[in-house]
Amino acid sequence: MNLLLIEPAELVVGEVSLTGRRSEHLRKVLKVVPGDTVRVGVVQGQVGTGRVLAIDGELVRLAVELTHQPVCDLHIELILALPRPIMLQRILKQATVLGVRRFHLIRSRRVEKSFFHSPVLAPDKIRTFLLEGMEQAMDTWLPEVSIHPQFKPFVEDVLPTLNGQGLIAHPDADGTLVGLPVSGVAGQRLLLAVGPEGGWSDYELQRFLDQGFYGFTMGSRILHVDTAVVSLLAQLQLLYDLRKR
Amino acid sequence: MNLLLIEPAELVVGEVSLTGRRSEHLRKVLKVVPGDTVRVGVVQGQVGTGRVLAIDGELVRLAVELTHQPVCDLHIELILALPRPIMLQRILKQATVLGVRRFHLIRSRRVEKSFFHSPVLAPDKIRTFLLEGMEQAMDTWLPEVSIHPQFKPFVEDVLPTLNGQGLIAHPDADGTLVGLPVSGVAGQRLLLAVGPEGGWSDYELQRFLDQGFYGFTMGSRILHVDTAVVSLLAQLQLLYDLRKR
Repeated sequence: MNLLLIEPAELVVGEVSLTGRRSEHLRKVLKVVPGDTVRVGVVQGQVGTGRVLAIDGELVRLAVELTHQPVCDLHIELILALPRPIMLQRILKQATVLGVRRFHLIRSRRVEKSFFHSPVLAPDKIRTFLLEGMEQAMDTWLPEVSIHPQFKPFVEDVLPTLNGQGLIAHPDADGTLVGLPVSGVAGQRLLLAVGPEGGWSDYELQRFLDQGFYGFTMGSRILHVDTAVVSLLAQLQLLYDLRKR
Repeated sequence: MNLLLIEPAELVVGEVSLTGRRSEHLRKVLKVVPGDTVRVGVVQGQVGTGRVLAIDGELVRLAVELTHQPVCDLHIELILALPRPIMLQRILKQATVLGVRRFHLIRSRRVEKSFFHSPVLAPDKIRTFLLEGMEQAMDTWLPEVSIHPQFKPFVEDVLPTLNGQGLIAHPDADGTLVGLPVSGVAGQRLLLAVGPEGGWSDYELQRFLDQGFYGFTMGSRILHVDTAVVSLLAQLQLLYDLRKR
């Protein structure tokens, strides 16, 4: 936990009182005493510092001073063929650490239907993974996660409403990483589509291409989905930084 | 398993007979029948195809035809402050998938001594993770893994013998990802040093810098070591491809 996250409603006239997991982390891992300061962020808000006012048993009381909004000049939404639950957990957390702003978890021919009934998809479970990622990366942006158990309604009704340059990873695609249309314009928005372990079906790939997505191959090595997601997010950020205007 | 890996000694006059895990994969996952072909690679050797000749109970017999050596024009060695065992497993596998040629697992001030006694470091365990990575990436290069339980002997006696441009990731370093000295020359050799969760100590960082390593920061987001390793390997490959001559 590199950032102590609090909800807007927990902040009362510049103070917050914590119990539970966060209090335990402050007391047992960071071993704070009154007067110490820690980095604090408000979910969907600013970051700043929290000064420990008092510790009373389980209760830790902090005075919070918020100073600035975390910056993010590249807005990436991840369109992900729903992976198996254990991998989903890891991806949600790692992609949040790497700054993904919004997730669209979708059906694809090679996604098992049963994955959509996993307890990992419960909103409070998902929220836990996202918060862990935000705490690690010191970000206050809570990504939105939408779940689309059918491919066609997603691609026909939702996809056209999304805003940004589409990019779709596929082994046989014509484009390359070097050719990715990342311009480096401030506030650039990208929609990155990553398929299931077996790849998108031809039909699925075509539907994305029809909507202006740039199809590209990641090279000859075949990556697991979690490795592919982390690699691609890191590479998009680097391309953006290299081409920044 | 995208590539069936066999040891050189298993190949007898162009044929190989398999039992155990690989046989089971062929029979139960790929459901091969005589006449089918699968991708085959020889450890530290060539790749090609294997044609199923016969299946007799557990035994699968294949005729192997080797066609070419997998190419790799960027040689990366990873110098890694030994992470906790569960993370080490994941990193060894993922970094092998991404093409790391050699691992140096080293002590650092913020590495717990006990990590060096983990059963995960047994040679046959390590070999399993590496082979899984090679099977996934369809590579036949078996990375060498050396373990250095003391920092000073590594940095003084081993590091000077390694060949390549050194790069060291550290939050406070002056350099950036964009400034990384990756030239894109064919056969380029890089030595990438990644520290423990708490970062390198000032002394450790300085020892690397003294030996010509380029110190760089990955940005303001703090990554877990496994995410950092995957991100950096992907970014180095992209930089190499962008600057390829």
